[in-house]
Amino acid sequence: MPSIMKNMKKEWRIILKKSVMADAAALKIIPLGGLEQIGMNITAFEYEDSILVVDCGLGFPEDDMLGIDLVIPDITYLKDNIEKVKGFVITHGHEDHIGALPYVLKEINVPIYATKLTMGIIEAKLKEHELDKVVARKVVQFGQTMTLGDFHVEYIRTNHSIVDAAALAIYTPQGIIVHTGDFKVDYTPIFGDAIDLQRFGELGKKGVLALMCDSTNAERPGFTPSERTVGSTLDSIFEEHKDRRIIVATFASNVDRVQQIINSAYKYNRKVAIEGRSMVNIIDTAIELERLNVPADTLIDADTLKNYPDERTVIITTGSQGERLAALSRMANATHRKVSIGPRDIVVFSSNPIPGNEKAVTKIINELFQKGADVIFQDTHVSGHACQEEIKLIYSLTQPKYAIPVHGEYKHLKAQAKLAEQLGIMKENIFILHSGDVLKIEKQEAKVVGTVPFGSIFVDGLGVGDVGNVVLRDRQRLADDGIIIAVLAMDSEGEQVLAGPDIVTRGFVYVKESDEILEEMRSVVNATMYDMMISNVRDWGKIKNNIKDAVGDYVWKKTKRRPMILPVIMAID
Amino acid sequence: MPSIMKNMKKEWRIILKKSVMADAAALKIIPLGGLEQIGMNITAFEYEDSILVVDCGLGFPEDDMLGIDLVIPDITYLKDNIEKVKGFVITHGHEDHIGALPYVLKEINVPIYATKLTMGIIEAKLKEHELDKVVARKVVQFGQTMTLGDFHVEYIRTNHSIVDAAALAIYTPQGIIVHTGDFKVDYTPIFGDAIDLQRFGELGKKGVLALMCDSTNAERPGFTPSERTVGSTLDSIFEEHKDRRIIVATFASNVDRVQQIINSAYKYNRKVAIEGRSMVNIIDTAIELERLNVPADTLIDADTLKNYPDERTVIITTGSQGERLAALSRMANATHRKVSIGPRDIVVFSSNPIPGNEKAVTKIINELFQKGADVIFQDTHVSGHACQEEIKLIYSLTQPKYAIPVHGEYKHLKAQAKLAEQLGIMKENIFILHSGDVLKIEKQEAKVVGTVPFGSIFVDGLGVGDVGNVVLRDRQRLADDGIIIAVLAMDSEGEQVLAGPDIVTRGFVYVKESDEILEEMRSVVNATMYDMMISNVRDWGKIKNNIKDAVGDYVWKKTKRRPMILPVIMAID
Repeated sequence: MPSIMKNMKKEWRIILKKSVMADAAALKIIPLGGLEQIGMNITAFEYEDSILVVDCGLGFPEDDMLGIDLVIPDITYLKDNIEKVKGFVITHGHEDHIGALPYVLKEINVPIYATKLTMGIIEAKLKEHELDKVVARKVVQFGQTMTLGDFHVEYIRTNHSIVDAAALAIYTPQGIIVHTGDFKVDYTPIFGDAIDLQRFGELGKKGVLALMCDSTNAERPGFTPSERTVGSTLDSIFEEHKDRRIIVATFASNVDRVQQIINSAYKYNRKVAIEGRSMVNIIDTAIELERLNVPADTLIDADTLKNYPDERTVIITTGSQGERLAALSRMANATHRKVSIGPRDIVVFSSNPIPGNEKAVTKIINELFQKGADVIFQDTHVSGHACQEEIKLIYSLTQPKYAIPVHGEYKHLKAQAKLAEQLGIMKENIFILHSGDVLKIEKQEAKVVGTVPFGSIFVDGLGVGDVGNVVLRDRQRLADDGIIIAVLAMDSEGEQVLAGPDIVTRGFVYVKESDEILEEMRSVVNATMYDMMISNVRDWGKIKNNIKDAVGDYVWKKTKRRPMILPVIMAID
Repeated sequence: MPSIMKNMKKEWRIILKKSVMADAAALKIIPLGGLEQIGMNITAFEYEDSILVVDCGLGFPEDDMLGIDLVIPDITYLKDNIEKVKGFVITHGHEDHIGALPYVLKEINVPIYATKLTMGIIEAKLKEHELDKVVARKVVQFGQTMTLGDFHVEYIRTNHSIVDAAALAIYTPQGIIVHTGDFKVDYTPIFGDAIDLQRFGELGKKGVLALMCDSTNAERPGFTPSERTVGSTLDSIFEEHKDRRIIVATFASNVDRVQQIINSAYKYNRKVAIEGRSMVNIIDTAIELERLNVPADTLIDADTLKNYPDERTVIITTGSQGERLAALSRMANATHRKVSIGPRDIVVFSSNPIPGNEKAVTKIINELFQKGADVIFQDTHVSGHACQEEIKLIYSLTQPKYAIPVHGEYKHLKAQAKLAEQLGIMKENIFILHSGDVLKIEKQEAKVVGTVPFGSIFVDGLGVGDVGNVVLRDRQRLADDGIIIAVLAMDSEGEQVLAGPDIVTRGFVYVKESDEILEEMRSVVNATMYDMMISNVRDWGKIKNNIKDAVGDYVWKKTKRRPMILPVIMAID
């Protein structure tokens, strides 16, 4: 009996049989937020009365989403089918796969399944949102299979830039769907075992209906190097700079990287301080769950750094993406309470800039150089995602009928689609799905049969969804050219201007009370009011529109700018 | 007699002699805007009563300069010494070297010196600003030497991503300063001859006091490939896609690249249409000045594209940096009047994203893929700047006493400083200058002796310098969280509220008139007013501040946001 059968529960075999009988029953795959852009990975799998959801990630705002803190997926479809939703099956503990859980669980309270470290990180989030007492959750072992309604989900070990990352084999009545999660093939991982390639092979022999494979690096030829290669680089940096303090910036969630920095520090007899709240939290969780081995007396509190000679310390810090408020940024611009940068420092960026962050990262590097530090930012990072040869390997092991590239921008999905075609998958069996697409998938045929509601909900401060496109458009206009407010007081019959117009500007240009432009704007408003009065216009909406147009025209002619014009009329009884 | 002597004018030799006698006279080099960031290249050279200025570039706004169109250098120092300023000596026709000229010349009308194409591009700008009749200018030949007060400036041919780029040998009473401009070493350039390496060698033999060398690629090992290598890549793309329309996006100013696209088009019997105003302008200038060879009947108007089969056409377009309003962007999002993208199109990005533009470029690539086009964006560009081996070559030829790395971010200047050190320049003779630094330079010693005013002037619409940091700070706040305006009418003694408070918000959250939050804000204002009245506060400034604080606190508690709060009080007689 092949090992898969041992893992399977009885009812699963029955359901599979039943589904063979009832071939018309539809299996649907519905991405709800994350396939077109990095972030917001959330995909629903639906069969009759069961929906399971893989991952529940948040997105980071684009440049034009002014003032927005986070973006979470619109889960209207899940709410409308709440009685079907059996749970969230999480692949790994990165924000773009778990970050929306606290928001979504407030609306759909269903169980969460995840591996040990992933669940640890989720639990910390739930605690913050006071949800830890109310949400059911189950820690899953690799090789274990869960039942969620008509589905069975097996967790398969992979490698990624965080420990305990999993691929999923989703057993559906139509066949097996393999979802890789975010993965790479690392034959010599830092923690735990290498990706369970045998299992991918076994599943392939059994027959895989569809493969949903990570596309992030699908444009890159070759293999992603092992995480371990970074360790030797770190060692050589520590070897070369024995007389200086070393500061290493990396992703808070890259636990393996932190492990290697700690390894090098221990080897070269240095104490390690952690800076940045998100990193402290994840490292605490990882230590508690035994996903990080820290030799005794190695970690110190950042407050005690001053008790050690610089050359006996390492600081591991957040802010490797140039985030303005993160620890490294504060160190670079001299606003950090505990650490100030100087010529005795070596700063290592153990990370690559995520697309969009290049300029922010470069800015910090320049600041660090100007403070006299040496900065090392090349060859000190490897990706956590599979390159082309690894993607081909997974395709060759699983030999799916259908290919559904996931995780990446459109160009990455497209690049994987090309690979899939090269590997012999028929073009009509390759699907690049858009958010909301409903892919109906059967043994004989698969096709997009419709769409469900989808989209981005903006989180701004405590507000979830109260900032929409109108507000964003206003913010953009305010950001570009500021606002001009024209205030008038009128008698309540609207027959007489009692006071004003007063003109106030913000974010427009630097104006003094005496400036001609203010005087001229007042004249423009007065002239408009005069026109309104003699034409007997009493409709305040109309009056406001006329003021808006007149002041807008004047300002455009004078300055070639289009600030927001806001007329306010007060009624005096 | 070495060739340099032949080029020299008589008085120069006299001055040189004099300067040897009067060694105390100071030569000063003063960067006024561009050494720390890309853009705004402008450097003053001062000796006694003479100032010459090398280049006069503009900068593009950083992300936090909301609404700003351009940045130009603060030239207070030049204005304060206007009687000394002998002219602008321009190295080549890129915006970061010429773009501020129209703004600066309005304040300091002095002659401009430049090579043929460079001057052609400058002239088009001056015409636009109606300055072409009032500014003196001289087209310089390579090898020619100009006299500007105590200075003599020789133009030396280099290679760059635009034709007619020059290095400068600046003969000063203290010695020769070589300024490379932006350059690369291209042994097989598209137009004209290779960089005049012999002349760099001759000058080196003669003795170079200081080298100011392009640092852009100082972090990159090896040699920048010849521009010609792109030609073969383009040919192979044309060869491979004979049945499809080809669209090539590149920099408007990369005349050599345009030449090569035209060459490939001609070879493969395609017509060429140019899209994008800036590119049309530069190409017109280049054709007129015989810097671009276009075979007869090759260029067509974009309006006539429809008269030719797709596979017989090439479109060369602007927008390779993802600029939202450029032609390519409009094609990608289907708002271009003449060209719409479809599966028959191959789009070639013959450019790399400039740091900061990566995300915008990726966005367009994704859009193009989604329209069904194939997009080629790798290996279709070479840099116009020298890599490490070329920089070393120039140092080895010139063997300067002092090294002053120019053109690049701080990390690039730093990288060149390291190279200079490796090549034997003494550390104390290497200067990374900041804007405004005054480097006093003598045969025996050089040092920074002070600073002069410097900075960035923001250009927004027609306004030059009327947007400063206060306005930008307001725009940032408005962009992040919007504005809440609270309007009250009071009797002019300030004893009674006659109307209001009315609350208006923009860019804050989506609120309806009936929403609780508006009602609560009105209550907060009313409560504040009540307090003010019973405490007999009549000072409107104080009242406004109290309203601001009270509403701000309420909003923060309720939403964790900090919109701008703007109280307006109207006095009613």
